[in-house]
Amino acid sequence: MASSNVTAWKPADASRVPETSKLKHLIESQQFTLPLLMELFQRTRGMERVVARGGTLEYQNKILANLFYQPSTRTRFCFESAMYRLGGKVLSTEQASAFSSEVAGEQVEDSIRIIANYSDVIVVRHPQAGGAQRAADVSPIPVINAGDGEGGQHPTQALLDLYTIYRERPLTGLSVAMIGELDRGRTARSLAYLLAKFDRVKIFFVAPQELQMKPDILDYLDERGVRYELESDVEAVIGEADVIYQTRIRPERVSDTHGVKRYGIDSALLAKMKSDALILHPLPRTVELDKSVDQDPRALYFRQAANGLYVRMALLTMLLDQNS
Amino acid sequence: MASSNVTAWKPADASRVPETSKLKHLIESQQFTLPLLMELFQRTRGMERVVARGGTLEYQNKILANLFYQPSTRTRFCFESAMYRLGGKVLSTEQASAFSSEVAGEQVEDSIRIIANYSDVIVVRHPQAGGAQRAADVSPIPVINAGDGEGGQHPTQALLDLYTIYRERPLTGLSVAMIGELDRGRTARSLAYLLAKFDRVKIFFVAPQELQMKPDILDYLDERGVRYELESDVEAVIGEADVIYQTRIRPERVSDTHGVKRYGIDSALLAKMKSDALILHPLPRTVELDKSVDQDPRALYFRQAANGLYVRMALLTMLLDQNS
Amino acid sequence: MASSNVTAWKPADASRVPETSKLKHLIESQQFTLPLLMELFQRTRGMERVVARGGTLEYQNKILANLFYQPSTRTRFCFESAMYRLGGKVLSTEQASAFSSEVAGEQVEDSIRIIANYSDVIVVRHPQAGGAQRAADVSPIPVINAGDGEGGQHPTQALLDLYTIYRERPLTGLSVAMIGELDRGRTARSLAYLLAKFDRVKIFFVAPQELQMKPDILDYLDERGVRYELESDVEAVIGEADVIYQTRIRPERVSDTHGVKRYGIDSALLAKMKSDALILHPLPRTVELDKSVDQDPRALYFRQAANGLYVRMALLTMLLDQNS
Repeated sequence: MASSNVTAWKPADASRVPETSKLKHLIESQQFTLPLLMELFQRTRGMERVVARGGTLEYQNKILANLFYQPSTRTRFCFESAMYRLGGKVLSTEQASAFSSEVAGEQVEDSIRIIANYSDVIVVRHPQAGGAQRAADVSPIPVINAGDGEGGQHPTQALLDLYTIYRERPLTGLSVAMIGELDRGRTARSLAYLLAKFDRVKIFFVAPQELQMKPDILDYLDERGVRYELESDVEAVIGEADVIYQTRIRPERVSDTHGVKRYGIDSALLAKMKSDALILHPLPRTVELDKSVDQDPRALYFRQAANGLYVRMALLTMLLDQNS
Repeated sequence: MASSNVTAWKPADASRVPETSKLKHLIESQQFTLPLLMELFQRTRGMERVVARGGTLEYQNKILANLFYQPSTRTRFCFESAMYRLGGKVLSTEQASAFSSEVAGEQVEDSIRIIANYSDVIVVRHPQAGGAQRAADVSPIPVINAGDGEGGQHPTQALLDLYTIYRERPLTGLSVAMIGELDRGRTARSLAYLLAKFDRVKIFFVAPQELQMKPDILDYLDERGVRYELESDVEAVIGEADVIYQTRIRPERVSDTHGVKRYGIDSALLAKMKSDALILHPLPRTVELDKSVDQDPRALYFRQAANGLYVRMALLTMLLDQNS
Repeated sequence: MASSNVTAWKPADASRVPETSKLKHLIESQQFTLPLLMELFQRTRGMERVVARGGTLEYQNKILANLFYQPSTRTRFCFESAMYRLGGKVLSTEQASAFSSEVAGEQVEDSIRIIANYSDVIVVRHPQAGGAQRAADVSPIPVINAGDGEGGQHPTQALLDLYTIYRERPLTGLSVAMIGELDRGRTARSLAYLLAKFDRVKIFFVAPQELQMKPDILDYLDERGVRYELESDVEAVIGEADVIYQTRIRPERVSDTHGVKRYGIDSALLAKMKSDALILHPLPRTVELDKSVDQDPRALYFRQAANGLYVRMALLTMLLDQNS
C-alpha cells in the first residue's frame, strides 16, 4: 500500500493552493482544481489516521442531512459513518419524494430551504441530472451531489476512485481502461473529468458500441488534449492498462446474448492483465465481476469502499471548514 | 425581527407560573395555559441563542423516539435536529405500522409500552384523530403529538406558527385570516385554539363553504367570546388581516375549477395586503402559494420552518425537565 | 425482583471462564457455553445500573450497523437504544435488499464486506435461515443474528427471555411450557437450545400437532438428556409449569377454527396457573394473549422488553471488548 506523489506538488507548500480555491458545494467532479484535489487527498490521508485512532469529536456540533430521492444504503452509510467518525450527527431519508404525507412531490428547492435550518451540510441523491445543482442554487449551506440521474454525475465516487489509484500509483502518465455501460455510467463520467486534470493520461473506453461513452465527455477530453480510444474488445486493450475500471453491465442492455461475458472480468482475463494492474469497481456488481477475482491481489474494490469513508470525511471537513 | 410581549407577563416573575402547571404530554394545543405558553416562548428565545452557539451537550443522555405511522420527513427532521442540537440521540421509524415483520398492525399501546423502555420522550404521528392520546394513556414517558388524523391536531406546528407571530407582533388585538381547506386543516385547528387565549383576537376563516372550519372550533371560540367571521371571498378580508395564515388547498377538493386560484396567494393579492402583514404557511405548498411570493419581505414561511427547530427544542427541554 | 444464581458459578471467579471462550459472532444461541452465558448475565446486571445512571460514553467511538432485510422496528430500536446508552452511534436500514438503487438483490456477502469498513459491529436480520452465518463468514467485525428465517434462530431474543427468568428463578430444575406455532417459532427454538444447558430442566411443547416443535430441536434435547413432552392440550400442563412461554399463533395456520383460543392465554387460564408462575411472550402478540392478562402480576412480557435493552448492551460490550 505504498503511496506516491506523482506531481511535484508538496503537501507542506501551502503557497501553491490559492486562497480563492474554495469549495461551496460539490456538484460535479470537474469543479476541483488540481491544488484543491491535492488538498483533499492530503486531508484524506489524515483521515486514515483519525479513523485508526478511533475518530474525533471535533465536529460534534455539526449535523449532516442525507436527502435521498432513491435508496442507496451503501452511499448513505458511508456518508453517515464519515460524519460519525468526525463526531457529528446525521439526519437521513431515502424516500425524500414522500417528504410530506400530505403533498406528494414537493420540489427539491422547498425541501432544501427547510432542511438547511436543521443541518450544516446536505447530501442529495436525485433521480434527475441537474437535481443536485437545483438544490445548491437555493441552499445557504454546502450541498454534496451523491448521484443525480443516470446521465449525471457521482463526484464523490470518482474522488474515492481516484484516491484509491493515487495511493498506489503516479497519476501522470496513467493508462486506464473503463469497461461497461459507459453511456449511463455516472461514476465513469465523473472519473473521466478528474483524470483529464493529469498529464499524459490515456483512457480506453471499452463498451458495446450502443453503450459507449457519450460525446460530451469525449469533447471535454478533446479540448484538453487527453488521449483516449473507443474500443469494443476488452482483450485488445487489457494488457496495456495500469488501471481496469470495471463498471456494471446489465444483461438486458446488451443486444448480443454473449455480450455481457465479453465486457466483464473473470479468471481468464486476469491472466492477460499487467502483473501490477489495479482492478477497481464502484460496486455493487452484477455478473460482470466474477467472485473468483476477489482473491487476486490486484483486486482493490473493497479497499475502494474503505477509501470512500476517508475521502468523504475529508470532503466534509473541507466544506464545513471553508463555509462556517 | 423585534420581539414584543403583549401580555403583562414577565418571564422573570416565576411566581406567576403555578407549580401545578406542568406538562406531562403534549397532545392538544389548548393544553397550554397562558403562563406555560409564555414559559415555552422564553425557553424558545433561549434556544435561538443555544443554536447560534452551536448547540449544547446538556441532554446527551437522552433519547427521542420518533414513532411515525405516516412519513413526514420535514417534521421528523425537525424533531431530530432539535434533539441533536440539545446533545441527544434519536430513534426513528416512518413506517410504524410495520412495527414487526411478523405481526402486521400491532396496536399503538403495545408499541408505546415497549419503546418507553428504549427512550426518554416519544413523538407520535398517527393516521387517526385520537391516536396520540391513546399513546399517552399508556406511556410512562412524555408523548408529543406530531399530527393525528386529518381532523385531529398538530400542536407543535401551531406553537411554531404562534411563536413566529410573537417574534414580530403583539398577540393581543391581532387580526388573522386563515385560508384554505380548513375542515381538514389540523394546523389551522390547533392554531385557532391557541389564538383564543389572547385578548381581542379576530379570526377570518376563508374557505369554500364546503371546506369551512368545523363547528367544534367555532363553538370553542364562541364560548370564549373570540370574534370570528366565515368568509368565502379572500379579497373581502385580505386588507384587514395582520397575519395571513395560508394553508394548502387541493384542487380535487374544490368543486369550482377556478376555485383554487381564489383561495391562494399570488402577486396580485400581495398588493392588497397590509404593508406590514405577515404571510405564514405551514408548508409544504401545492398551488395555493405562488413562488413569486417568496421574495416579498412579508413572506415568513421559511423563517417559520427555522422557528420550528427552536420551539421543538424548547418543548423537549420542558417535557424532559419536568418529568425526570 | 430477587435475583438468584442456581448454578454454583460465582461471577468473581474468573478462573472458571476459560481464556478461549471468546465470542466473535453471535449466530446461534447454543454457541454460548455456560460460563460465557453467566458472564453475559453479570454484564447485563451491570447494564441495569448503567442505564439507571443515565448511560455511559465509554463506547462513543463505536458504530453499530443494523442491516435488516425485513423491517422490525422493535428489535431495531432495542439495538439502537442499547448502542446509544453505551455512547455509540448507529447506521440503520430496514430495506437492505434495496442496498443499491442500481442493482437489486446484492448478495449479503458483498454488503457485509463494505459495511465492515463503516462500522464496528453489524446486526443482521435476514429472511433465510443461514443468512446470518453467511454474513459472519466474510465479516472482519462481529456479526449478531437478529433473526434469520422462520426456521432459523433469534438468539438475542432467547438471551433476554432467559435473563428475564434468571432474574426471578433458579434456572436448574425449571419447568417451562412453550405454547404456540412452535414449528416456525425461532424464539422458542433459540430458547430451547439455551434451556438445555441447565440441569433438570423440563420443557412442555404445547401446539397443534401440525405446528409442533421440529425434530432437530427434539434430537438435540434427547442427546443432552433433557426431559420434554409434546402436548396438544394447554390445560393438561399449565398447572405444572414454572414458566409459561407463550408465542404467537396465527389463526390461518390452525385447521380447527376454535384452535387458536385453545393455544392462548386468557383470564380463565390464569386461574389454573401456579400462583408464582412467570408469563413470558416475545411480542408482538396477535390474539393468543388477551389484554386482560396485562394486569396480572405474573405477566412479565413488558419487563422482558426492558431486559432486551440490558442484554443487548451487555452483548455489544462483550463482542466489542473481545474483538478490538
